[in-house]
Amino acid sequence: MTTFKQTNRTTLKRLPKRGSYDQKLVYQILDEGFICHVGFVAEDHPIVIPTGYARRNETLYIHGSQASRMLRTLSGGVDVCVTVTLIDGLVLARSAFHHSLNYRSVVIFGRALVVEDQKDKLVALRAFSDQVIAGRWDEVREPTEQELRATTVLALPLTEVSAKVRTGPPLDEEEDYALSVWAGVIPLKLLAGLPEPDPRLPAGIPVPDYALEYERSK
Amino acid sequence: MTTFKQTNRTTLKRLPKRGSYDQKLVYQILDEGFICHVGFVAEDHPIVIPTGYARRNETLYIHGSQASRMLRTLSGGVDVCVTVTLIDGLVLARSAFHHSLNYRSVVIFGRALVVEDQKDKLVALRAFSDQVIAGRWDEVREPTEQELRATTVLALPLTEVSAKVRTGPPLDEEEDYALSVWAGVIPLKLLAGLPEPDPRLPAGIPVPDYALEYERSK
Repeated sequence: MTTFKQTNRTTLKRLPKRGSYDQKLVYQILDEGFICHVGFVAEDHPIVIPTGYARRNETLYIHGSQASRMLRTLSGGVDVCVTVTLIDGLVLARSAFHHSLNYRSVVIFGRALVVEDQKDKLVALRAFSDQVIAGRWDEVREPTEQELRATTVLALPLTEVSAKVRTGPPLDEEEDYALSVWAGVIPLKLLAGLPEPDPRLPAGIPVPDYALEYERSK
Repeated sequence: MTTFKQTNRTTLKRLPKRGSYDQKLVYQILDEGFICHVGFVAEDHPIVIPTGYARRNETLYIHGSQASRMLRTLSGGVDVCVTVTLIDGLVLARSAFHHSLNYRSVVIFGRALVVEDQKDKLVALRAFSDQVIAGRWDEVREPTEQELRATTVLALPLTEVSAKVRTGPPLDEEEDYALSVWAGVIPLKLLAGLPEPDPRLPAGIPVPDYALEYERSK
């Protein structure tokens, strides 16, 4: 088992038994998700911004407009914390106190690097597309040189990383198990509905299978 | 229309037309969600932690164990940023560059206050329960005094708040509309599956309707 080296910041302070440094688990979580929350400090206060991401090998990419304050700030090589959270279910216990959530989350600390090389940038942009829908990139118009220039891509090395996971039924106080209250888990999943064609789509273009059968969890 | 007063930190730097300070919209987003990402600074670096929340009137509550580093840090009255994100769909454009997401997010800046009074704490804990499942609180065992003491509840005033929303089909370059590529939106939704009873649940306790018909969006 390949594990991430535990550091002071990635050592879980609460419920350490839910923590993991297993690279395989971390990658599974990162590959199932596609939205992260990026935390950084600007003008002396913390800011948390949701954005898409892609994982490729040992790197997490984020991207956006060159004009984005977040990307300009992170390009300066400041500390960043990126968190990915998957919600798996509501845990209904017999006591209010022991209600919980089933979830899988990953927290990454580090500093991002600007991807300058145009070829590397294109590889990263393809990774974003693949993270969301494999197969899509080959069907759409590739970025022009101008579009590439307008896009900032940042690479965050996956080195200082931890995962946290809760699974399973509620854990109640022993005496509460006798209560006549339904207890268990309501599973939750991000599911796709029927694809909605662009109103400007010409007739005769079929909905691709990857849109009809879209699923986040593998 | 009641609106939040725009401040320097809540003024959207990118795509301001997606921004809103409409209180009704902000509350709708906060009421549909139940997980936030809390950003704060500890030991000079940013940290982003996912956690449950509840909105009640003009206050957002977060809570957890007294031992939690996040809650202990925030109890000190430091700057915090809390972000709630709902993912509504994947926007598939004809060009790689114009792919996007439909989403609704809220960003809150401020400083949290510790809820000390036991009665106020109980009101907040009930709000957490109601935020996740209305009706549940009345069926379960209420917190004991000891459980209340072990729980820290923080109140963040909803004053410095903004929302950001993207909806609708892709927006492609005019010349790309002629391309023979399917374009549109794959809607995404957090949906509940069949409730999974706790293995220790005695026979004869029926699954409550709120678990069978669980829905996040109203």
